[in-house]
Amino acid sequence: MAKIEGVCREVCEATEFVAIVTSGEAGPHLVGNWGDYMRLLGIREDIIVFPAGRYRQTEENLRKNNRIQLLVASKKVRGSRSPGQGCIIDGTAEVLSTGEIVEAVKAKFPWARGALVVHVEEVQSQL
Amino acid sequence: MAKIEGVCREVCEATEFVAIVTSGEAGPHLVGNWGDYMRLLGIREDIIVFPAGRYRQTEENLRKNNRIQLLVASKKVRGSRSPGQGCIIDGTAEVLSTGEIVEAVKAKFPWARGALVVHVEEVQSQL
Repeated sequence: MAKIEGVCREVCEATEFVAIVTSGEAGPHLVGNWGDYMRLLGIREDIIVFPAGRYRQTEENLRKNNRIQLLVASKKVRGSRSPGQGCIIDGTAEVLSTGEIVEAVKAKFPWARGALVVHVEEVQSQL
Repeated sequence: MAKIEGVCREVCEATEFVAIVTSGEAGPHLVGNWGDYMRLLGIREDIIVFPAGRYRQTEENLRKNNRIQLLVASKKVRGSRSPGQGCIIDGTAEVLSTGEIVEAVKAKFPWARGALVVHVEEVQSQL
């Protein structure tokens, strides 16, 4: 199982936002979250947590198909040939509304209705 | 048909990167491109162009299902309640390898094998 380390950790530490894709009956569903929010909750080696505000469609999609993909990117991290690197993070996820992780999220984001918890399985740098 | 204007244009002018999602047999396919590259090619009201380096899976997906979604976001643009705004841009797209648009892309990005041309249909601010 891949981990958030090396260049991908560098990109996670630098990305301004995160693109989050789930799969629904109507096709891919794309939402975003802020890199700052992800970092404030602490990026573990194989778990990434986001505060969930709305994410109703994301939650519904994950209930039927728990696969998720994230894209993080930053010009501040050097790619193999030029400045700028992106990483695709692949795994499974769930939207939680109770429990320890949710309490930690609500302590920092009082507006959150829950937590989007991503279990990282694969990490691929792009450039 | 929605256009790239107002807050969405502001976000397009500010976003560091762009998340690009197409739909394939294996599910959603997520790739990225740089905001700078999109801006260098000129963001028209209803057409966005990216240099295509690899994008083989994206191209294959678009041949069977030409729907595409983009996410752009920036903390520099004010959302309705706090700093930071994101926009989902929905439309159709194709990867072109010849023609006027491709010549314009190659003049600025000699490494490009073609152009990813997005025809914008819907624009939604997120925050």
